[in-house]
Amino acid sequence: MSKKLRIGVIGAGRIGKLHSANLVNRVPNAEVVAISDVYEPAAKAQAELLGIANYYSDYHKILEDPTIDAVFICSSTDTHSPISIEAAKAGKHIFCEKPIDHDLDKIRPVLEEVKKAGVRYQVGFNRRFDRNFKHVHDVVANGGIGDVHIVKVTSRDPEPPSLDYVKVSGGIFVDMTIHDFDMVRYLSGSEVTEVSAVGTCLVNPAIAEAGDVDTCIITLKFENGAIGVIDNSRQAVYGYDQRIEVFGSKGCITADNETANNTTYYTADGVSKEKPLWFFLERYNEAFITEETAFVEACLNGTETVVGAFDGLQPVLIAIAAKESCEKGGVPVKVMK
Amino acid sequence: MSKKLRIGVIGAGRIGKLHSANLVNRVPNAEVVAISDVYEPAAKAQAELLGIANYYSDYHKILEDPTIDAVFICSSTDTHSPISIEAAKAGKHIFCEKPIDHDLDKIRPVLEEVKKAGVRYQVGFNRRFDRNFKHVHDVVANGGIGDVHIVKVTSRDPEPPSLDYVKVSGGIFVDMTIHDFDMVRYLSGSEVTEVSAVGTCLVNPAIAEAGDVDTCIITLKFENGAIGVIDNSRQAVYGYDQRIEVFGSKGCITADNETANNTTYYTADGVSKEKPLWFFLERYNEAFITEETAFVEACLNGTETVVGAFDGLQPVLIAIAAKESCEKGGVPVKVMK
Amino acid sequence: MSKKLRIGVIGAGRIGKLHSANLVNRVPNAEVVAISDVYEPAAKAQAELLGIANYYSDYHKILEDPTIDAVFICSSTDTHSPISIEAAKAGKHIFCEKPIDHDLDKIRPVLEEVKKAGVRYQVGFNRRFDRNFKHVHDVVANGGIGDVHIVKVTSRDPEPPSLDYVKVSGGIFVDMTIHDFDMVRYLSGSEVTEVSAVGTCLVNPAIAEAGDVDTCIITLKFENGAIGVIDNSRQAVYGYDQRIEVFGSKGCITADNETANNTTYYTADGVSKEKPLWFFLERYNEAFITEETAFVEACLNGTETVVGAFDGLQPVLIAIAAKESCEKGGVPVKVMK
Amino acid sequence: MSKKLRIGVIGAGRIGKLHSANLVNRVPNAEVVAISDVYEPAAKAQAELLGIANYYSDYHKILEDPTIDAVFICSSTDTHSPISIEAAKAGKHIFCEKPIDHDLDKIRPVLEEVKKAGVRYQVGFNRRFDRNFKHVHDVVANGGIGDVHIVKVTSRDPEPPSLDYVKVSGGIFVDMTIHDFDMVRYLSGSEVTEVSAVGTCLVNPAIAEAGDVDTCIITLKFENGAIGVIDNSRQAVYGYDQRIEVFGSKGCITADNETANNTTYYTADGVSKEKPLWFFLERYNEAFITEETAFVEACLNGTETVVGAFDGLQPVLIAIAAKESCEKGGVPVKVMK
Repeated sequence: MSKKLRIGVIGAGRIGKLHSANLVNRVPNAEVVAISDVYEPAAKAQAELLGIANYYSDYHKILEDPTIDAVFICSSTDTHSPISIEAAKAGKHIFCEKPIDHDLDKIRPVLEEVKKAGVRYQVGFNRRFDRNFKHVHDVVANGGIGDVHIVKVTSRDPEPPSLDYVKVSGGIFVDMTIHDFDMVRYLSGSEVTEVSAVGTCLVNPAIAEAGDVDTCIITLKFENGAIGVIDNSRQAVYGYDQRIEVFGSKGCITADNETANNTTYYTADGVSKEKPLWFFLERYNEAFITEETAFVEACLNGTETVVGAFDGLQPVLIAIAAKESCEKGGVPVKVMK
Repeated sequence: MSKKLRIGVIGAGRIGKLHSANLVNRVPNAEVVAISDVYEPAAKAQAELLGIANYYSDYHKILEDPTIDAVFICSSTDTHSPISIEAAKAGKHIFCEKPIDHDLDKIRPVLEEVKKAGVRYQVGFNRRFDRNFKHVHDVVANGGIGDVHIVKVTSRDPEPPSLDYVKVSGGIFVDMTIHDFDMVRYLSGSEVTEVSAVGTCLVNPAIAEAGDVDTCIITLKFENGAIGVIDNSRQAVYGYDQRIEVFGSKGCITADNETANNTTYYTADGVSKEKPLWFFLERYNEAFITEETAFVEACLNGTETVVGAFDGLQPVLIAIAAKESCEKGGVPVKVMK
Repeated sequence: MSKKLRIGVIGAGRIGKLHSANLVNRVPNAEVVAISDVYEPAAKAQAELLGIANYYSDYHKILEDPTIDAVFICSSTDTHSPISIEAAKAGKHIFCEKPIDHDLDKIRPVLEEVKKAGVRYQVGFNRRFDRNFKHVHDVVANGGIGDVHIVKVTSRDPEPPSLDYVKVSGGIFVDMTIHDFDMVRYLSGSEVTEVSAVGTCLVNPAIAEAGDVDTCIITLKFENGAIGVIDNSRQAVYGYDQRIEVFGSKGCITADNETANNTTYYTADGVSKEKPLWFFLERYNEAFITEETAFVEACLNGTETVVGAFDGLQPVLIAIAAKESCEKGGVPVKVMK
Repeated sequence: MSKKLRIGVIGAGRIGKLHSANLVNRVPNAEVVAISDVYEPAAKAQAELLGIANYYSDYHKILEDPTIDAVFICSSTDTHSPISIEAAKAGKHIFCEKPIDHDLDKIRPVLEEVKKAGVRYQVGFNRRFDRNFKHVHDVVANGGIGDVHIVKVTSRDPEPPSLDYVKVSGGIFVDMTIHDFDMVRYLSGSEVTEVSAVGTCLVNPAIAEAGDVDTCIITLKFENGAIGVIDNSRQAVYGYDQRIEVFGSKGCITADNETANNTTYYTADGVSKEKPLWFFLERYNEAFITEETAFVEACLNGTETVVGAFDGLQPVLIAIAAKESCEKGGVPVKVMK
């Protein structure tokens, strides 16, 4: 394999643009050699902006290029699983945006194909690469708080997505909480066995009309005996609220929000600090670069990715259980194995 | 009525000592004229320490004294309701430690008798008088965060009580979480309609053998549409962990733990801050004085107490529902009206 | 000596009212038996408010009362030294408000007389009893930061005193900074040998017309080799700004302002915390009680006071040097021994 | 001019490596086409690492290359001024590491030549580009604290440089405090007119033997009437301590240290936070990239640099006055114009 990882990016929407720009500008050992989008002008614009040699409307051109080592799947969610399978068959390493799919019958074949092909597979759970959350994980994993008793995640978006998006999103649990389901697995070092979810619509009644909730609390039980809780809102008017806490037999560790600066401002009106960074592009800016770098290095060095295909499946299983629990008014639901 | 409120304290155990000492030393308009305890030497010792004129083994002596305006009921939990009823019939204002009782059939007659007698009644939910929690309440009540969406309470003791105590405590929900049930009512300004509780035993297996849990998460639904969550542990090795958060349509407000001082200490080994104050006597020291003062002033001025008999009943109803939910593995249970 | 310390309070102005009320309500082993004020109605009013048995216009009545153990001198500054001398001769323990005097020729005889009489003497440097500052002192004294290298004090009032007061105050260094001069001695554990002061008038030009400055920075050299800096302003619009820092060979420790509560409030407009407590009555409320208790206990137990007569002299010597330096545009001036 | 700025980097030591790597990897519109170092293997190694086309031992090769638009002068301090003059004459835009020189007779000709040549000139005062300090500056410049009264800078290195370095450094004021002198000008928006400096040797006696101090406090007077203070130490064992504060008629704003993450860790032993980032490479990592980007954009767009040649001269003038004051035991010394 070449010293640099030769990459094709599939999809030139918001997240495809983000990944391709980072790969070009910020990840030393990455070389983006092609980008595709069903809407070719988008692929072309990004290729020209970043100096990427090739652009296509058909991603198969990328899969067929024998000089390409790896792909970033940044296309629409419904295409994640089929492209994953095709890419694995083509022997490409795969970075796939979350979720792999909402449908278990589409995810499980991906796991099989990836295993068969022996390629690297990484799911885009970028928060694992946030410096604060990673430090919490490391302290917990090193026994710094003893046995894990309680895991808490606060996760609130600054504003709800468009109603059009809500309608096709698969619902808050599979669309938004899925990141938190991954986070609790990461922090606890254990699998979720059962969940109960309470959800309601307090932000925008139209979200209820679309069959979804915008505010929810999910209680979790873990295989290792710990319990946990996640609270979500689609609208925190003060910005993206992303905090975690792990409590155990020997202590507790918390991570706070990130802000644009750490100044404190005192006036006759009060004392003020900066608000949390507005949304995921700001908050997880560095985390995206770190996850991309980690994927590139795993491919180049032949090591395991931090977030594999199995890690892509589990949060979907939890989300399915949470959705069922919420629809049944909060009764506990076991997570499928 | 005399300018100072003439008080008899019933019970000279830990909490009776605390209240009598504060009333004598810190509450200007209180005058403790008698103290009783079934173990008379305890009453005598406290009377001598504080210069209280009379001490008895039989609390009826206090109820029969026509010069006494009010009583503090600090005896064992099982005596709270009968003494409350007797005191009300004797026309005394009543400060009663929490809980009034575990048994609804014993609490409801107290409410009736208090109403009939027209005396002031205050339940010892001291946390409402904590300066931090009160400020959060006030901001929420004044609309500072808009409509309430999510209420969160973290409440962890520094160490579990003795097993003997656990066995007669009525269980964690009615013994420990009851303060948190009061807090969520206070913060949300609304009644809890349904709860689901997940509990486990991670601190000490003997607590499980005694039929109780030591670690739990309780999800709550409120009449006003908000949802909430409480997490409890019987053992936070770093001290009494008491934090709250209320999130709403226009913002969020949080209160943190209190510490012995606000210094920051930097060495080659790290940067350290003080731990949370160890337990409730330290953390709620000022809150106890404030609640006592509030009671005394309410009696002297003929105004309503901040925490009345009804407020003593509601948390017990929630605790009963939580216990049932926990025993059924977390199924949602409606709170009785 | 009686179990309780029998005290006469001389002066019923702002600080005399504060001390007498605290001694009556908050200091267990104190018994205030008399209060005097040149304006007798003030003494009478306070005596009636607190139930003090005797009030006088002439403080000699207090000195002549053989049942009185100790006096609190809370009268105007010019009377501190003569009353101190008379009280010492009368064999009373003495708590004297700061400063003992502005004039060295009046302070030195006080030290002599106190020594001769063998009475306890405590100067009202209340900040030493602030829980935060005391903790910093203790850590430094216990070697927690190694050798002291730099001592920093930020000390800013919320608003300037009246011009009438400024004119008779003796100037900012002897009136305001004197507390900070005591603080740097307390924190460093060493004497100040030389100072240079830069002062200017930025808050109110009328203060300059009165011959004083309202904003200043004072650099200090200590006997133990450390250096230090104090900055003062007569007007911090956000409240009383009182912070300290001690830096040394093994670390650094800082203490921050105190606030009414520790809540954090997040809205679309920003994140806000409480302002510092407004002024010394709020900030040092508990410190006053602690200093009074310490004095009472020192008298009753025959132990040394934490802040003796010598500690009353030293800050005045530093203030005199600072004033001279400031008038000479900042040239270094040695502190008299 | 080409769309990308074609740059030659002069010097491949620590700071030359830093700048060249950032320019290649992190500054989009920069193109490093050559690097030189008197020790050619250093230039060669860096060229190969980063894929820079040309490397030389003689920097004149860079100045003679007509395709090069700008140079980064990262060679030893004594060469800054002559190379600046040569580069200006060659029509190159210039980024020069601080200080331009210690000798005014060498700095002033640089200013003249730069003016004559009409090239952009930026001095490497990277701290102006720190997100926290820049925010403080912006709030002050926008009137957020009213008139500036007091400027405070805490600036302490984690460990002293080698004695060999100390001996040729020009002394602490011109080597270390020079950054702080730039900072107070930046924050106050005004020129320093007079300084008095107190310095001592508390970290390492060998520094005193080398004729320098390692701990100092510098008081400053500004043209606009404000006053200020800087404290320095060559050794803060807990890491790089870089904090600022600006206090004025309408408020105060402070900036704190940066840490590796924002977690809080609670155990039975205490509550701990992360230490400040270790040294300038960690703390000002992003600030370096921001300053490089700002220089590149100023050159490409023909706009003024944020820190010009005049800004390179002023801190040296202040440092010279501070050194004189310190040597004279702290007498105030006027800053040359």
